[in-house]
Amino acid sequence: MSNVKAAIVTIGDELLIGQTIDTNSAWIAQELNKLGIDVIRRVAVGDTKEAIVSALDEELQHVSLLLLTGGLGPTSDDITKPLLCEYFGGKLVVNQDVLGHLMEIFERRKRMILERNLKQAEVPDNCTVLFNKMGTAPGMWFEKEGKIIISLPGVPFEMKHIMEVEALPRIKELFKGDHIIHRNVFTAGEGESVIAEKLAEIEEKLPPYIKLAFLPDGGFVKLRLTGKGSDEQKLVTELEKFQAEIAEILSNIVVALVDEPIEKILGDTIKNLGKTVGLAESCTGGYIGHYFTQVPGASAYFMGSIVSYHNNVKEHVLGVKHETLETFGAVSEQTVAEMAQGAIKVLDVDYSLAVSGVLGPDGGTDRVKVGTVWMAVASRETVVTKEFHFYYDRDRNKEMAAKNAMLFLWKFVTGRL
Amino acid sequence: MSNVKAAIVTIGDELLIGQTIDTNSAWIAQELNKLGIDVIRRVAVGDTKEAIVSALDEELQHVSLLLLTGGLGPTSDDITKPLLCEYFGGKLVVNQDVLGHLMEIFERRKRMILERNLKQAEVPDNCTVLFNKMGTAPGMWFEKEGKIIISLPGVPFEMKHIMEVEALPRIKELFKGDHIIHRNVFTAGEGESVIAEKLAEIEEKLPPYIKLAFLPDGGFVKLRLTGKGSDEQKLVTELEKFQAEIAEILSNIVVALVDEPIEKILGDTIKNLGKTVGLAESCTGGYIGHYFTQVPGASAYFMGSIVSYHNNVKEHVLGVKHETLETFGAVSEQTVAEMAQGAIKVLDVDYSLAVSGVLGPDGGTDRVKVGTVWMAVASRETVVTKEFHFYYDRDRNKEMAAKNAMLFLWKFVTGRL
Repeated sequence: MSNVKAAIVTIGDELLIGQTIDTNSAWIAQELNKLGIDVIRRVAVGDTKEAIVSALDEELQHVSLLLLTGGLGPTSDDITKPLLCEYFGGKLVVNQDVLGHLMEIFERRKRMILERNLKQAEVPDNCTVLFNKMGTAPGMWFEKEGKIIISLPGVPFEMKHIMEVEALPRIKELFKGDHIIHRNVFTAGEGESVIAEKLAEIEEKLPPYIKLAFLPDGGFVKLRLTGKGSDEQKLVTELEKFQAEIAEILSNIVVALVDEPIEKILGDTIKNLGKTVGLAESCTGGYIGHYFTQVPGASAYFMGSIVSYHNNVKEHVLGVKHETLETFGAVSEQTVAEMAQGAIKVLDVDYSLAVSGVLGPDGGTDRVKVGTVWMAVASRETVVTKEFHFYYDRDRNKEMAAKNAMLFLWKFVTGRL
Repeated sequence: MSNVKAAIVTIGDELLIGQTIDTNSAWIAQELNKLGIDVIRRVAVGDTKEAIVSALDEELQHVSLLLLTGGLGPTSDDITKPLLCEYFGGKLVVNQDVLGHLMEIFERRKRMILERNLKQAEVPDNCTVLFNKMGTAPGMWFEKEGKIIISLPGVPFEMKHIMEVEALPRIKELFKGDHIIHRNVFTAGEGESVIAEKLAEIEEKLPPYIKLAFLPDGGFVKLRLTGKGSDEQKLVTELEKFQAEIAEILSNIVVALVDEPIEKILGDTIKNLGKTVGLAESCTGGYIGHYFTQVPGASAYFMGSIVSYHNNVKEHVLGVKHETLETFGAVSEQTVAEMAQGAIKVLDVDYSLAVSGVLGPDGGTDRVKVGTVWMAVASRETVVTKEFHFYYDRDRNKEMAAKNAMLFLWKFVTGRL
């Protein structure tokens, strides 16, 4: 277990006051993981010199590779560049490549270039510049006492671009750690305790270099086996043996053996059948359509969604009968069944999914409590309905409804209902 | 500036390998901020004893309040509770209230209670239990040498519930820091450099206890003034004076003076006019409908969305002419104009917004490059179109398209086009 250890330091007050959620660290961690590098800590600090320097000092004690994001913009709260320059004992000089690139960007955007933008072409003379094709702030690569320190912009797509094109290839060349390999089992239908109980025997059999983790996520539980070792092929074989054993034990709740989201698993299933799908969404407001279209190539099977938030749309676009809405209400078995059948016709699809519920915080009644969601799945021949109850806040109820709806459709399409 | 300093430590390998994005820290930071408490660092560590203990040791040197999340579940990778118990020199005892609550949960879910679940009722005898009505793992409140250490489950809605009901009221009572107050100016239309240039004079005038931050976000730039001080009213007056000055200087690009998302600003505008709105979405796949329905009470003005991912749906549901699609293509000024007009009729709304584009990575042609998005906004009388270009990856292009579409509609509705 002699893996290279890395830490990630994110810089910016917006992270500490909670105005921004840090998505960069997760992405960076995944990429380093693929190279067999362990991220052992992630630290977020504010835009002050003391906080940044203290984080540099502390983290460099523990790791050989330190990645910093943020604080490279053109405004006065961006202090990372001069600070790093000083920390590593260099001075700022204009880099001609970066300058040329800056001029080009401003010309293309037809914007006047300002003194403060020109400053973005200045880089410390003691670093390797990591060219940023996607933006104005270049990345920087410092080496000190055998350790590598990489500074990247905080804007996610700029950070990712520099990592992919400039930083990761160099990191890969420099550090060769143990392989870190993951294998997953994606389940739905049982809680993590019950699953853990069923897997207790297998867990005891696991060698010290293989760990099993339980990741509950909105009605699903993802199981992740992580192995570390120098012999990649041996590790893969071993991990897949345990993965197969787990899948066997949990056969009635296994959805897939990949770490892929339900929208991808469902989409692939429909695509492989050569079928098409459409939606009739009420309370989810388009969120399930959003999920479907997150998958590149979804246009091969996803035709569209009728977001019928108002009853008029359910009636006039989907053809839900006025009496059905009057008699049973918008959140009812009868309504979702007609919505699903309407979607089949209106969108001309092989499968449909309809959802109508009350997500909260308001809108509940004695008959239909907040958190009640009716769903229907249909083919051209048949329709199946189901009632769900979610107990959380609006956002989480929406998330749970969307994911459970896709799982419900997946079960229907694969003949599990 | 004698504010209480806090740190947040998140525990879990899933955070270090990037399988989970940490949204808890941002929420906690916001809540502590409201109480005048500065979060000075956030640290993520893995599920190992050494990593957690070392984070506890380090962070407790810098802060008076330390919040930990994660590692409290019923499976073997959850080691936080026994570790904290030992760290603070206590022993685990069964808590009857927690036990009763656990039994109740399992009865309600009709699930067998397991030995490992019963263990969740054990708590260190040297902590105050923070009751978790939303789940099985209780929170814990430790005090040591005048410092407070709070351990919370990692599941976001459980963590939030315990914070709101149990932890924050106690924290508020114990610590009374300086007030930390934010005022925002939400702009669209200029980059942060140009804005910074225009605000250079004001920035120099700011007293040391007021900071100005620039937060670019998908075509928008949010400006945030943060003031700290003991006299709340004086601080508010001063902040609002600077906020007004900034708004005056940037009058042509100001959207609002609040830190609210564009869907809320747009929704409120339409609601206050007593009008209704509907969408015709192609490439955004329902994402704009999702945004609209994120706002509680959106049903007062949001009627629905026709997600016409496939051309058949554009033609047969929205009534886009076959010749239009044939002649100009799905991503064209003519098509989005007819989509918007179709949405007005089909959804029977006062305003509509239509979007059709190519988000990538594939699907581009010589005529319509990846990143091209046509948009149209319409009322019952008129329609306005605009072409947009986004240069990023699929996810980011979708995000930019959705946000810019809402801004485009906001400008239309408020007479700015």
